[in-house]
Amino acid sequence: MARGHRTHKVTVIGSGNWGTTVAKLVAESTREHPDVFEEDVQMWVYEENVTIAKDSPHYAAVGDQPQKLTSIINTCHENAKYLPGIKLPSNVVANPSIQDAVKDSSILIFNFPHEFIANILKQIKGHILPYARGISCIKGVTVTDHNVELICEYIGETLGIYCGALSGANIASEIANEEWCETTIAYNTPPGDLRASNGAAPNDNGGEHKDSHGQISKIKLTPLPQNYPPLGHEEFYKLFSRPYFTVSMVSDVVGVSLGGALKNIVAIACGFVEGHGWNMTAKTAVMRRGMLEIIAFAREFFPETIEEKTLWEESAGWGDMIVSCTAARNWRYSKMAVERGVTVQEIERTELNGQKLQGISTSREVSSFLRARGAEQNYPLFLAVDGILDGKVKVEDIPKLFRK
Amino acid sequence: MARGHRTHKVTVIGSGNWGTTVAKLVAESTREHPDVFEEDVQMWVYEENVTIAKDSPHYAAVGDQPQKLTSIINTCHENAKYLPGIKLPSNVVANPSIQDAVKDSSILIFNFPHEFIANILKQIKGHILPYARGISCIKGVTVTDHNVELICEYIGETLGIYCGALSGANIASEIANEEWCETTIAYNTPPGDLRASNGAAPNDNGGEHKDSHGQISKIKLTPLPQNYPPLGHEEFYKLFSRPYFTVSMVSDVVGVSLGGALKNIVAIACGFVEGHGWNMTAKTAVMRRGMLEIIAFAREFFPETIEEKTLWEESAGWGDMIVSCTAARNWRYSKMAVERGVTVQEIERTELNGQKLQGISTSREVSSFLRARGAEQNYPLFLAVDGILDGKVKVEDIPKLFRK
Repeated sequence: MARGHRTHKVTVIGSGNWGTTVAKLVAESTREHPDVFEEDVQMWVYEENVTIAKDSPHYAAVGDQPQKLTSIINTCHENAKYLPGIKLPSNVVANPSIQDAVKDSSILIFNFPHEFIANILKQIKGHILPYARGISCIKGVTVTDHNVELICEYIGETLGIYCGALSGANIASEIANEEWCETTIAYNTPPGDLRASNGAAPNDNGGEHKDSHGQISKIKLTPLPQNYPPLGHEEFYKLFSRPYFTVSMVSDVVGVSLGGALKNIVAIACGFVEGHGWNMTAKTAVMRRGMLEIIAFAREFFPETIEEKTLWEESAGWGDMIVSCTAARNWRYSKMAVERGVTVQEIERTELNGQKLQGISTSREVSSFLRARGAEQNYPLFLAVDGILDGKVKVEDIPKLFRK
Repeated sequence: MARGHRTHKVTVIGSGNWGTTVAKLVAESTREHPDVFEEDVQMWVYEENVTIAKDSPHYAAVGDQPQKLTSIINTCHENAKYLPGIKLPSNVVANPSIQDAVKDSSILIFNFPHEFIANILKQIKGHILPYARGISCIKGVTVTDHNVELICEYIGETLGIYCGALSGANIASEIANEEWCETTIAYNTPPGDLRASNGAAPNDNGGEHKDSHGQISKIKLTPLPQNYPPLGHEEFYKLFSRPYFTVSMVSDVVGVSLGGALKNIVAIACGFVEGHGWNMTAKTAVMRRGMLEIIAFAREFFPETIEEKTLWEESAGWGDMIVSCTAARNWRYSKMAVERGVTVQEIERTELNGQKLQGISTSREVSSFLRARGAEQNYPLFLAVDGILDGKVKVEDIPKLFRK
């Protein structure tokens, strides 16, 4: 069968405000590139009943009885619950069955809260194409005392596919409103996926693929069939970039994943410093030191693979750091804690409706990991945040960490 | 004469709010290190008559007649005009004679507005120690169509001495109030200045010294006499660092100087973007792209000497960028211009009491320099700022610069 006969079908797994936003933008792109992508984009929606408010423009169509969220999305082209007020392209197709949503899709986009990963992967395992490829919009890493695992790599290994990562200085509601920003996609293209469509000999093992530690991956990748268009940086750029959403493609999943996770510790530190009454200049010093510790961490634990310039140069590095430390949750609530003279844990209990601050758990896990290895000495800021969370270090002692 | 017999005398040339703040902090340090520095710090003050307000705590001592500013500083230990409310150490000695202030000083700290440089250097030339060393707190570069000259290097070449540069995410009034922040000092120590005090053979040419283009410097440095303590990173760290002012020493005067100058163009761009109604995520994208263009500029025009990590890692790089684009003048007034629908030049005329926005002239000079060399293609953001200042480019077209 001639290469190019099929096109890539795309599924977004998740439909919160970020998942729905990503479904919107990729659906706009699939319409523009029918030679590469199937037009309809599947979006898996955790089904629930939603009642439309009387003042909603959709009230006339939906009525006052509770309706299934998927039905509202497919009728009104709006996620009335999680992204109200944003018109979705009609080729976003909400699907309440996760197995049906992922069926026949060669591109899977993972976009839901961290804590649901294991359960969701279990549901789709065995129901996806063996040669599917993934992009994780779930930022970060999972840290135990013995291991630091990239979330995209965990997804890939669990499903037996290759999975890259998207991360950047992004705020879903702004992107949904088409306010311009940029992002980074890390995708270490499996070599076989770029095979020319001119009938060159297929590389049937899909190419040897290395994991985040530079080792031959445990995954035996199934090659992308010859009748699909190639799938690499050029195609993912086409799929994700919009006039209001600038995409930079890199291969370094380690830098993108570590930046996306560890900056939350730094954001907590910045909230402490600003809550204490220091200014932007002091906060900037903490951001800078935090970035140096992220790079040191990457060098120490991923020495074979880290490309430091990802963290220096990309939106997923310094860009995300700046936004996380000036306009996002971890920063905002740790600042509030110091201003009110209570612990961040207390603020988490009283202000967050059961949600968690990622920076707190990341700080705990990373500090524990570093102590288990006796590697504390190069990470004074990371450890200080943990110490402040424990009440053992004072915020006013932060500048001392910076002295020779 | 045994090494160590003399100590380094320090003069701060300039007494605005930043000059006075630096005099305060170095005077605190000279008291702590009598083995290296003479205790008294000379501060040259452009003399003027000042009347003390009736509600000032110094009114009783000074009275209601106008008094000389130097006299007020030396009596009340406060620069009542340019840094009111800040107590200065009594070893800051205000001196109205610039020739007398620099006499016998081996360390000269330059801290006054850019536009006075030529005149001030003319006044002190021939009155300084031939082996004096300098630190420029005047940020930046001078750009003509044919040349980019570092200000610290211009000072050094004019006076026939070596001069380094101090730059960082610093706001004078905050440092004066001892609110913690950090800075970077770039000092490419003349090799002879580190000669051990144990009587090792002196290197009488002061060591061969290279300029910012990696060429043997035109300056024939006079060696530091053997009866002084060595003068390098360790000593400058001692002189400038305080518990509230963290210092990082580097050798890269190019990175520090270019960062300090070119970030002002980026700050103007950030003001445009934010004034247009975009958010922190968009501004962060502009900062990131601006930093990439600064690094490209350094690579292209100072290929032999630039150490890129200065810009990635130091307060004078990303740190200064962040503060300049979120809390400083160039950003604030360009934002105001777009919000009010007028040009920045108009805002400069109506809001700045005759002061100038450095970012405007730097944008003009750098764009002209790039055009003269046909080197525009790698600097779309720099050129766009120039185009917007000319009314030839629209702010809303900035995101297009970022597309492939």
